[in-house]
Amino acid sequence: MDLVYRSAKLQDLESLVSLLSSDPLGSQREDATLPLNDAYLSAFEAINSDPNNALIVVELDGNVVGMLQMTFIPYLTHIGSWRCLIEGVRVHEAFRGQGLGERMFEFAIKKARSKGCRLVQLTSDKQRPDAIRFYEKLGFKATHEGFKLAL
Amino acid sequence: MDLVYRSAKLQDLESLVSLLSSDPLGSQREDATLPLNDAYLSAFEAINSDPNNALIVVELDGNVVGMLQMTFIPYLTHIGSWRCLIEGVRVHEAFRGQGLGERMFEFAIKKARSKGCRLVQLTSDKQRPDAIRFYEKLGFKATHEGFKLAL
Repeated sequence: MDLVYRSAKLQDLESLVSLLSSDPLGSQREDATLPLNDAYLSAFEAINSDPNNALIVVELDGNVVGMLQMTFIPYLTHIGSWRCLIEGVRVHEAFRGQGLGERMFEFAIKKARSKGCRLVQLTSDKQRPDAIRFYEKLGFKATHEGFKLAL
Repeated sequence: MDLVYRSAKLQDLESLVSLLSSDPLGSQREDATLPLNDAYLSAFEAINSDPNNALIVVELDGNVVGMLQMTFIPYLTHIGSWRCLIEGVRVHEAFRGQGLGERMFEFAIKKARSKGCRLVQLTSDKQRPDAIRFYEKLGFKATHEGFKLAL
């Protein structure tokens, strides 16, 4: 597979929202109607204009087949080290089980290293056992509880 | 208690590193020697110059008694909503058990709301049962596994 990794462009937005919505959890909380809800555009612009956020699109033969968002965060902890937080990881359902997720993470981990990060972190919903096994296989350790509070 | 919440200043850095180091986990991974390791200064400057990061110091009678870091992150998920990630929460050991943590979170949650965040998230080490109970009491739900990968 000849994958292309690149920053998301405004033209990708409909594909990205469609990817986020075609998922058991995402279908309950996204708005896939067109034209897109303005909130997606505002969020896209905020991500795109922040040098510490990268919305990565994975392309195969001109089609968006995967996505993930990386946030680079400086912390005092761990002797003032940067971390990379990964969220919003999705692989198009037609392309699952082909090692695409592993390759996306190889790319992301390499990028995190190149940015000087000493830690990559992410949270995975306990309702996603496949995702949890996937991250464990990649070497991630579930040392922490992932807490959320809706405002 | 007359608490003051404010952004950290360079002059606070020694107190903050001392707070981070006087903790069972922090003592294994921080460097409390003086003069401070340059990495703490670089991290402080990176945090301070990023409008989406806020290093909050809690002061009582002119002394630093608590700290936490807030990161405001725009996401496409949840219909393009902002989240607040909280890390590096510490309360000075001499001031524990007096409700200081609860008050710091009241402040942080209010600030997250004022920034338009729809979710506050954090991870807590599974080796910190007291912290886990504290977050549950505040209404946080441990719906996610918190994964880390050291680079």
